[in-house]
Amino acid sequence: MRKKLKSEMGWSTADRIVVRGRDLAEELIGKVSLGDFAFLELKGRLPTKQESIVFNAITVTLVEHGMTPSVIAARLTYFGAPESLQGAVAAGLLGMGDRFGGSAEDAARMLQEALDSLPLPRQRERVGERVEKEDLKALASQIVSDHKARKQPVAGLGHPVHKPVDPRTVRLFEVASENGLSGRYVKLMQLVGNEATQVFGRDLPVNATGAIGAIASELGIPWRVCRGLAVMARAIGLVAHLQEEMEEPLAAEIWSRIEDESSSHLRPGSD
Amino acid sequence: MRKKLKSEMGWSTADRIVVRGRDLAEELIGKVSLGDFAFLELKGRLPTKQESIVFNAITVTLVEHGMTPSVIAARLTYFGAPESLQGAVAAGLLGMGDRFGGSAEDAARMLQEALDSLPLPRQRERVGERVEKEDLKALASQIVSDHKARKQPVAGLGHPVHKPVDPRTVRLFEVASENGLSGRYVKLMQLVGNEATQVFGRDLPVNATGAIGAIASELGIPWRVCRGLAVMARAIGLVAHLQEEMEEPLAAEIWSRIEDESSSHLRPGSD
Amino acid sequence: MRKKLKSEMGWSTADRIVVRGRDLAEELIGKVSLGDFAFLELKGRLPTKQESIVFNAITVTLVEHGMTPSVIAARLTYFGAPESLQGAVAAGLLGMGDRFGGSAEDAARMLQEALDSLPLPRQRERVGERVEKEDLKALASQIVSDHKARKQPVAGLGHPVHKPVDPRTVRLFEVASENGLSGRYVKLMQLVGNEATQVFGRDLPVNATGAIGAIASELGIPWRVCRGLAVMARAIGLVAHLQEEMEEPLAAEIWSRIEDESSSHLRPGSD
Amino acid sequence: MRKKLKSEMGWSTADRIVVRGRDLAEELIGKVSLGDFAFLELKGRLPTKQESIVFNAITVTLVEHGMTPSVIAARLTYFGAPESLQGAVAAGLLGMGDRFGGSAEDAARMLQEALDSLPLPRQRERVGERVEKEDLKALASQIVSDHKARKQPVAGLGHPVHKPVDPRTVRLFEVASENGLSGRYVKLMQLVGNEATQVFGRDLPVNATGAIGAIASELGIPWRVCRGLAVMARAIGLVAHLQEEMEEPLAAEIWSRIEDESSSHLRPGSD
Repeated sequence: MRKKLKSEMGWSTADRIVVRGRDLAEELIGKVSLGDFAFLELKGRLPTKQESIVFNAITVTLVEHGMTPSVIAARLTYFGAPESLQGAVAAGLLGMGDRFGGSAEDAARMLQEALDSLPLPRQRERVGERVEKEDLKALASQIVSDHKARKQPVAGLGHPVHKPVDPRTVRLFEVASENGLSGRYVKLMQLVGNEATQVFGRDLPVNATGAIGAIASELGIPWRVCRGLAVMARAIGLVAHLQEEMEEPLAAEIWSRIEDESSSHLRPGSD
Repeated sequence: MRKKLKSEMGWSTADRIVVRGRDLAEELIGKVSLGDFAFLELKGRLPTKQESIVFNAITVTLVEHGMTPSVIAARLTYFGAPESLQGAVAAGLLGMGDRFGGSAEDAARMLQEALDSLPLPRQRERVGERVEKEDLKALASQIVSDHKARKQPVAGLGHPVHKPVDPRTVRLFEVASENGLSGRYVKLMQLVGNEATQVFGRDLPVNATGAIGAIASELGIPWRVCRGLAVMARAIGLVAHLQEEMEEPLAAEIWSRIEDESSSHLRPGSD
Repeated sequence: MRKKLKSEMGWSTADRIVVRGRDLAEELIGKVSLGDFAFLELKGRLPTKQESIVFNAITVTLVEHGMTPSVIAARLTYFGAPESLQGAVAAGLLGMGDRFGGSAEDAARMLQEALDSLPLPRQRERVGERVEKEDLKALASQIVSDHKARKQPVAGLGHPVHKPVDPRTVRLFEVASENGLSGRYVKLMQLVGNEATQVFGRDLPVNATGAIGAIASELGIPWRVCRGLAVMARAIGLVAHLQEEMEEPLAAEIWSRIEDESSSHLRPGSD
Repeated sequence: MRKKLKSEMGWSTADRIVVRGRDLAEELIGKVSLGDFAFLELKGRLPTKQESIVFNAITVTLVEHGMTPSVIAARLTYFGAPESLQGAVAAGLLGMGDRFGGSAEDAARMLQEALDSLPLPRQRERVGERVEKEDLKALASQIVSDHKARKQPVAGLGHPVHKPVDPRTVRLFEVASENGLSGRYVKLMQLVGNEATQVFGRDLPVNATGAIGAIASELGIPWRVCRGLAVMARAIGLVAHLQEEMEEPLAAEIWSRIEDESSSHLRPGSD
């Protein structure tokens, strides 16, 4: 017996295209922005005005980070395969792994697992109400001490460049709060930052990926999908970098420098 | 002598991130939508309200097409490499090549090369004014007869499913017109459709990729980048499909069916 | 201060190409097989005759597995991007992750970590001699009980299809033994299989990836690189499948079936 | 009516794995080298001893080219996604496009199209015999003059570094000749090189990709698959470079240099 294949994403006939239950031509094109359409794709419904502002804020934050390893890889790939822009974007996205794309995912996972799995008696009694601050503090303590015991860094904290404060975090939490989306995930993330700073004895403020992981959790986005937010946003940035590469190519110069230097000790006449 | 490496996309210091000359935290997060941010990335400036509606309209159209080969490839890839969501998205994007992602590019190229390279005396005299309708008609004729002579299909026309009219085209041209972005590229694309229908003797209306190629040209997006619009939009759709795949996996069933059927004639006992 | 970039892989001048210290034209082309060249690339030296037979045996085993998810993804990708064969191969390789490519890696890691990190007093005393069988038995017990305690399956054991015995394992261990490369890693893997069969109370023989992980360890290949053996071998299989796809395309049929079925419950007229 | 899905590559049951009609464990593992297995995959039969030497020679030539753009992209990708070695190899392969992987394909296409499509009356009369040298000379003239008329460079000729002679070409043609595989494709390629040198008035000897395209044609490999030879060979080289990157990482240094330099003109305090 075969399992029936089923997808709820979209379908079309000769005269209609339907995405997530909505007529693409009549209800979406010209009425819905790209960011809100992404929310529809992920959640199966359009965002409220507040959700729209917050969801667009976190995705916007992920688009552009200058000349990252991922961008350099995309530019070098385009040099070798100019027939395939999609290949250069794909090469760039492949670098959005554990080190980069994974950090928002790790923070969201930490928050979602903590708030789902641990016993929070008062929360259960008063469904629909906010978790008490004391519960969250206890959770934050436990998270940090668990990480300390495992000698593992806490996801979403600290930044090698943006010190002592990551300006994106401040702004993202402000936007979430102004739009009624600063709930228990955001509070727990902030408490984890405070606790870690005390326990590890050095500044460990929430960084941009920590803020994004927390806010994505407020929006009900599963932690496994958070890496995908970085991937979809970065695809935009990569296309823009490749446009610049078409106009002002850097790849040949990068190649030539690295090849020359990295083999110079092997070449005849080197010492 | 080495060439200086230079990029205008973005940079950061300890307390600032700057994208395309604008402060990310102060000017962009919470104020600019993902679609408008993509416009900023590509054009170096934020869109006008009209440009925003039109740019979001064309990218929205490209996000979701149901269970395409690209989506199936992404789901199968995720099955084998669940640790790497970015790899599954990349695999899906790699199918956005000449057959799919390339069609908007081909239409934009046709329009941009025609309107840049061919002699249009009146256009040169009256810089800044619209090209006369007769010039465009002559261009459309020439484009179609050139394609006919080369036995080549005209990019951006006809659709195997959406017949006789692609509902997205109607809506996209409407949105462009309502927002003052239905200029000579759109008109030329429409004239090419009319001319091809006559010359080839069958319905060849402008399809969605033809409309997108024309409207992207109105927005000043180089044809080489048009495939990138499809790539960035499709990255969103792929993440959403992978979210569905996590919840309701199809890959194992697809694999099992295809493997069984495709090798059944080789197995012992088959005839 | 900048770190000097250095690579030992290869370099060239106007009249010479040197790979791993050997002149490509004079010493390698026409004299060394592709498999032995791969060994040279990884180890920095050519294999002995015995190492050559064994290394070629394990890589050969990894090339072709019929119509796997990875192969189907590659064929679907080629359909959308026929201009980019490299993109279709890349899409196929992206599915060689934790589920497929990772299993030989996991087995090699388990063996290499066990034989490097655990105290083996007699081994330390008699450097260069084989580890005693009792030490290996103790290690195998510990590995299996650790996995049982963590409720984790043991890497390299059991197979959903090849039961009760994986014919590749038998042959690979035979080839390793005939060529003097059946040392302590192979023995430990076999002991782990026996122990797990007893402890878990069901047939858990060493599968092909377990054998490959063990034999690669005998050849001194670091466990992190073992996934790469699968990747390089599978690239060959993917090119061959794409050649078949060019001649007898399956992608359009696969697409059409899956798209129709997966959206049939959404279409007007379905019940 | 559905089309039956069929593949001839391989299949398996509980106790057998069959590849291209041969039992993997009994007939292939330990008996056939990786290069010969690749030949089996592509051609459906094992090579003769001569074919084996020649096929291994051309694939060996394609494995390693030092620190190419493709290798640098793979190393940068691994830096961002160390969990996914397959992703880093895929990123590297994506650069094997028109500029690199495409050149052997272009040469093979030129030769195969010339020798299949043009009228060669004597060839048709004496099936199985060698094409006369005069026919090949006429073909070479026509190829070069066609390229000159289209202002297009001739595939497989000249090299920016390996001048005046590419040492790989000399050796590859020698190996082909010694093994009875220097037929009309190789002769035509050589004649095209001579003719182009005269017509264009500068040294245009056959380069390595020209030699590989010609020899692959002798082996009956379709030109569309020739890019795949480069892809499968380069996958080996990429795994070896990634092994080096694990041991002696360069990616962070490359990133840091490029990021600093490319944004230095934008940063406060720059002039």
